[in-house]
Amino acid sequence: MTTISPFLSACRGLPVPFTPVWFMRQAGRSLPEYHAVRAGTPMLDTCQRPDLVTEITLQPVRRHKVDAAVLYSDIMVPLRAAGVDVEIKPNVGPVIADPVRDRAAVDRLRPLQADDVSFITEAVKQLVGELGDTPLIGFGGAPFTLASYLVEGGPSKSYARTKALMHADPATWHALCDVLADITLTFLRVQVDAGAAAIQLFDSWAGSLSEADYRAYVQPHSARIFAGLDDFSVPRIHFGVGTGELLPAMAQAGADVVGVDWRIPLDVASARIGSDYAVQGNLDPALLSAGEAVLEEQVRRILAEGKAARGHVFNLGHGVPPDADPGVLTALVETVHRLSAA
Amino acid sequence: MTTISPFLSACRGLPVPFTPVWFMRQAGRSLPEYHAVRAGTPMLDTCQRPDLVTEITLQPVRRHKVDAAVLYSDIMVPLRAAGVDVEIKPNVGPVIADPVRDRAAVDRLRPLQADDVSFITEAVKQLVGELGDTPLIGFGGAPFTLASYLVEGGPSKSYARTKALMHADPATWHALCDVLADITLTFLRVQVDAGAAAIQLFDSWAGSLSEADYRAYVQPHSARIFAGLDDFSVPRIHFGVGTGELLPAMAQAGADVVGVDWRIPLDVASARIGSDYAVQGNLDPALLSAGEAVLEEQVRRILAEGKAARGHVFNLGHGVPPDADPGVLTALVETVHRLSAA
Repeated sequence: MTTISPFLSACRGLPVPFTPVWFMRQAGRSLPEYHAVRAGTPMLDTCQRPDLVTEITLQPVRRHKVDAAVLYSDIMVPLRAAGVDVEIKPNVGPVIADPVRDRAAVDRLRPLQADDVSFITEAVKQLVGELGDTPLIGFGGAPFTLASYLVEGGPSKSYARTKALMHADPATWHALCDVLADITLTFLRVQVDAGAAAIQLFDSWAGSLSEADYRAYVQPHSARIFAGLDDFSVPRIHFGVGTGELLPAMAQAGADVVGVDWRIPLDVASARIGSDYAVQGNLDPALLSAGEAVLEEQVRRILAEGKAARGHVFNLGHGVPPDADPGVLTALVETVHRLSAA
Repeated sequence: MTTISPFLSACRGLPVPFTPVWFMRQAGRSLPEYHAVRAGTPMLDTCQRPDLVTEITLQPVRRHKVDAAVLYSDIMVPLRAAGVDVEIKPNVGPVIADPVRDRAAVDRLRPLQADDVSFITEAVKQLVGELGDTPLIGFGGAPFTLASYLVEGGPSKSYARTKALMHADPATWHALCDVLADITLTFLRVQVDAGAAAIQLFDSWAGSLSEADYRAYVQPHSARIFAGLDDFSVPRIHFGVGTGELLPAMAQAGADVVGVDWRIPLDVASARIGSDYAVQGNLDPALLSAGEAVLEEQVRRILAEGKAARGHVFNLGHGVPPDADPGVLTALVETVHRLSAA
């Protein structure tokens, strides 16, 4: 019998020798070795090259000694593979050439076939070989967050067109989310089939919604993705930012682990979602530059609050900022391990 | 005895003939007549010209028949009047020439004297004469939100420098907030002295904080502003975005009315803050483009939920977007009045 990793144990609420830690966006923009290997290659092209994906995914594992790797990819990768004209513009984010704003545009979207992302299968297989005991987390975008990019045509502050479509034309909205749920489900199944040991569903912008709208227009689609992974035994993490009001609904969508940002202490989050779920989080990434003493105090607090939950995976409350000092992240992993093993 | 306006009655939890409504940023960017009168004048210069301030403040009252006017100004106006080099860049927001990041920079800030903003006194006096029975709302920025601009040097997504300063150097943080609280208090007192009938304290970005940090680093400074208005009898509104976790703390800072964004239903908000406070909100501005039927359904829901509170002032959950259709806003005022009077 193989030893189960601390990360997978924490996801399942099993005893751990120390609190496991990884960082959203640990692979990529904050590391000089990432910029070195990627130099000149557009981001989404990089995501389609298994050699680069493997190297970039491994970089933070080598450097920081995190307890899990996360596939270097993007929630837009399966959309591009399914024929959507999307690019990631530096300092902007995903930009969609032909925004999807009516039924005809939804009907032009096509499903994703596993073959469309064979580069993912190849990268994950390579990685699982290289990683040894360190589990690999796969991920995908939840229908709401993907839809927000497709409808707005790029990043948004207000999600005005997305919300207008949702309320004014629910049939088209649900049709769009149906297609997107299928695409993400295929993308996640490909990753698990190739050896990913856990998955995270990113609904990064769900926190812009009221709970009522989340439950009516979003949760059923994300729930269908989780249900579509039932035949695998991998832990399922569900993450969004500013989701204090949505945590129970996001848990009930079918997660094992609920991602929590820094706005809610983990014990409060755990009380809201109940004892069936582990939690992940929740250091404010803004504090990475606040100095060692502040960080150690924050880690102590978060570890103490995390004890209230069924299991706790340490993470930031959102992705690693581009200007984060990699040395601070390495020290943070050490601090989490040291203080939680004590 | 003068008839008390529906707006002031709702703020005080008194009976109203219909639910009063006004819109944050009703004066300004969404109105063609605003762009016409301001043409060529930089925004902060416009705010210093009583003739323009008066005209721009009156425009939405004439057009939409809202139940309160809100002074056309900006939370940066008193900082500029106190000598801070700040401008509002179109499509960016406030930009600070010399960001405030250490104690020396804090010590260089000077207090605001009423004379520094005599243009405000003049504009408010003119307006009160012109407005007749329609109350004028004055406003100012809360120390956290002002500090975030001063420390970051402009708008921010993460508030990383602000939060790092707060945690790593609390003495400097509190010194900065002390100065800013004094400046905003003076700015608000000038407006009430000249005839403003209510004030709103904007802590727009407080929702980026945890409740613990809000209570430790922010609430005492905002509370000092509210306490400094105790000798006036004007209603005090306290507003921020994404503040579901902070509503009780923001109420307890000394507000009469708590602004609520669209993420929390007003009955839920009211249950959190208790029966001593009125609420203001909370239509999602993103839905202004969702069509008449959707808006009417939203208004019905919000009016029903608002009945749970001591008083309800209808508003958007955040400012009017620049691209809002003014006709939709006019119709919305009529809808709120019609459905609440029925």
